[in-house]
Amino acid sequence: MSEQTYALAIHGGAGVILRERLSEDMEAEYRAKLLDAVEAGEAVLKAGGTSIDATIAAVRVMEDSELFNAGKGAVFTHEGRNEMDAAVMDGKTMDAGAVAGVTRIRNPIEAAKRVMTHTGHVLLMGEGAEEFAEEQGIALVDPSYFHTQKRWDQLQKAIAMGAETSLDHSDNKFGTVGAVALDSHGNLAAATSTGGMTNKRWRRIGDTPVIGAGTYAQNATAAISTTGHGEYMMRYTVARDVCALMEFKGLDLQAAAREVIHERFGKAGGDGGLIAVDAHGNIALELNTPGMYRGSVKAGGAIKIEIFR
Amino acid sequence: MSEQTYALAIHGGAGVILRERLSEDMEAEYRAKLLDAVEAGEAVLKAGGTSIDATIAAVRVMEDSELFNAGKGAVFTHEGRNEMDAAVMDGKTMDAGAVAGVTRIRNPIEAAKRVMTHTGHVLLMGEGAEEFAEEQGIALVDPSYFHTQKRWDQLQKAIAMGAETSLDHSDNKFGTVGAVALDSHGNLAAATSTGGMTNKRWRRIGDTPVIGAGTYAQNATAAISTTGHGEYMMRYTVARDVCALMEFKGLDLQAAAREVIHERFGKAGGDGGLIAVDAHGNIALELNTPGMYRGSVKAGGAIKIEIFR
Repeated sequence: MSEQTYALAIHGGAGVILRERLSEDMEAEYRAKLLDAVEAGEAVLKAGGTSIDATIAAVRVMEDSELFNAGKGAVFTHEGRNEMDAAVMDGKTMDAGAVAGVTRIRNPIEAAKRVMTHTGHVLLMGEGAEEFAEEQGIALVDPSYFHTQKRWDQLQKAIAMGAETSLDHSDNKFGTVGAVALDSHGNLAAATSTGGMTNKRWRRIGDTPVIGAGTYAQNATAAISTTGHGEYMMRYTVARDVCALMEFKGLDLQAAAREVIHERFGKAGGDGGLIAVDAHGNIALELNTPGMYRGSVKAGGAIKIEIFR
Repeated sequence: MSEQTYALAIHGGAGVILRERLSEDMEAEYRAKLLDAVEAGEAVLKAGGTSIDATIAAVRVMEDSELFNAGKGAVFTHEGRNEMDAAVMDGKTMDAGAVAGVTRIRNPIEAAKRVMTHTGHVLLMGEGAEEFAEEQGIALVDPSYFHTQKRWDQLQKAIAMGAETSLDHSDNKFGTVGAVALDSHGNLAAATSTGGMTNKRWRRIGDTPVIGAGTYAQNATAAISTTGHGEYMMRYTVARDVCALMEFKGLDLQAAAREVIHERFGKAGGDGGLIAVDAHGNIALELNTPGMYRGSVKAGGAIKIEIFR
């Protein structure tokens, strides 16, 4: 592999995203922000940085935008809170870090990275994760920072409909964000961040912070980040199974991603998608929903932004 | 498979359990309680009950005993709390339920089952899980119920030693409990419950409630429950990988369990073990530590209780 080889893919959520229901202005806004995120990640890779730092840079851009269900744009729980989950995994060391149910961390993905690098643990939850983040000097904010009118209106609508839980958008979108990358050192990484489901209750945790479900990275196979119905992602260990099909059955990245999304997760009833990159810089963007906000770039190539299937 | 076929295995934790450091009295106590647990599970299977109910019956016996690090005997966190995790998975439907970081639920495994059967979710945490359990009429207790002198002394010792975290016993034991079963209907299930690590901080969550790490069940392959260093179990998706090696590589249960514990998890630096049962009623009890409290039984056979490797 050449020193200059790198690859990056991102997603900003999958779901019933239909061309006829997305205005030209909104589409342009999403495309611009996805482009920002890819550029932020690529800048790290181009400078010889690590896949970990590239995925976090890309995810941060989406966490800081109101467009996506993560960080600033996180959806509301039944109780009117914003509870976020995030995870990161390093394919070289197979170290991982994650936080679940945090309400005061401006960029949950930063806290996930710090769990990976500064504790012997993988997963910290709620107030404990926040206390740790504070000790580490990570930016905390008042929970009101995450209050946006659009998300609040979605919660009121979900409650009025009597839905037990609801997808994060009026257009049935799962809004998790994520990034996967291969860096010029040959190392893979994956990062994922989410606000979960609108109207979720009882401090529900989804697949995002669960290593093997929403996030996985292993240099020998691939780095994966998922978006979709988290309960199915967990029961079918979606991220790990893409890697396991490559490692144990010899499938290539594209075949493994297709098998997991369409034959396993999809046939069981799950809706969603995943992004994946392997050690050769191959990229797979697989979904069984009408749309997934996504972008990708390879060394020497142009950035691609896509929304519809 | 005959109507009368069933199989059950349990564990009560793995670690540096040495014959010369376990008194005859203590060994007899452990053996008696492990026998109680196997008998409780077998009674369900013998009566034609489900593998889910059998594994929960066995785990409850261990949760109610001070001998094991789960339920009543849970270890203390750095802050002097008892924070428990539990999960259950049904191999027939691949439904799963789990709770993380609960402090007031007498039998966390009961709450995990209720998450599986009475919500669309897989994982609930902390106060949210407790609120759900209360709504469901599951027994709550004052947190002082989990206060035992032995565990308190272990915490003081760990703090005095300045350990960041510590295994749950002075004898370096990981005390998670678990059970796996095949019932006479041909269905597999796995259940796991734990108090985590003595002196853990920041509301750390281990592998127990993480589907694919500490707990997994799939009729087509096997049911698995693990005990050991949770962070390694998560990073190496131990429970799922046993199943994936069977499903994707054609390994038999024993070979898959051995490969995962000794070649993958073990070589990466993890200490611990797992119990597993497949759809033919084969049982695998694999460990890379000097001991693991364990027991097993098959239809028509005698109950076996073992402690040392």
